[in-house]
Amino acid sequence: MTAWLDRVKWDAQGLVPVIVQERDTGDVLMFAWMNREALQKTAELGRAVYYSRSRARLWYKGEESGHVQLVHEIRLDCDDDVVLLRVTQLGHEPGIACHTGRHSCFFQRLDVQRGVWQTVDPVLKDPQVIYR
Amino acid sequence: MTAWLDRVKWDAQGLVPVIVQERDTGDVLMFAWMNREALQKTAELGRAVYYSRSRARLWYKGEESGHVQLVHEIRLDCDDDVVLLRVTQLGHEPGIACHTGRHSCFFQRLDVQRGVWQTVDPVLKDPQVIYR
Repeated sequence: MTAWLDRVKWDAQGLVPVIVQERDTGDVLMFAWMNREALQKTAELGRAVYYSRSRARLWYKGEESGHVQLVHEIRLDCDDDVVLLRVTQLGHEPGIACHTGRHSCFFQRLDVQRGVWQTVDPVLKDPQVIYR
Repeated sequence: MTAWLDRVKWDAQGLVPVIVQERDTGDVLMFAWMNREALQKTAELGRAVYYSRSRARLWYKGEESGHVQLVHEIRLDCDDDVVLLRVTQLGHEPGIACHTGRHSCFFQRLDVQRGVWQTVDPVLKDPQVIYR
């Protein structure tokens, strides 16, 4: 029952990039990485489990913050080397996926005219409270 | 006016991963890579320009297929190392972003019970017609 894991083209580090999208809003929440074990656990548990490259271990999303991601769909792209999760972001309303306390990690928007990145989305909860 | 490009944390190959989302539907269309020049061109032209790792050159999306992507927003994540584009997919209605002739590259969905990837989205146009 793990043949489906062999279909994924793992990179030289044994990882695959993962795009995380909120199912109900369509918002792209974050980008992360999985190894084989993380993807297997994600499918098994129905909640997002990533591989933390900085900590070099499995990262059960929400293990510290409580911001668990319920996984509705796991998709694979045409080249079998990128995964898309469609999730519900739990633990806060609206959902907080970013470690900065924001809804999405993609809160910096380029102002093309001025050539500057602008922070356009608010902090919903103080990270010092999230990760105390 | 290129200081904003220095904010991006380019990887060891000088690349950054790019998530491409259709603005009007919220659909995640594809995943690609950019180098510095590609990102600069994308901002300049308001259309998506990627870096093709297989061809080792700039890839003006739609240069062969006509499936150009009009870029409305360029976003950067909290770690400054992933880009999100919000686009309109031109050249066909509904938009075709995938080289297989499908709307999105993420057309394979995991059937968790059976442990198989299933193709769940239709081919909208024969790739042999797109890339003749």
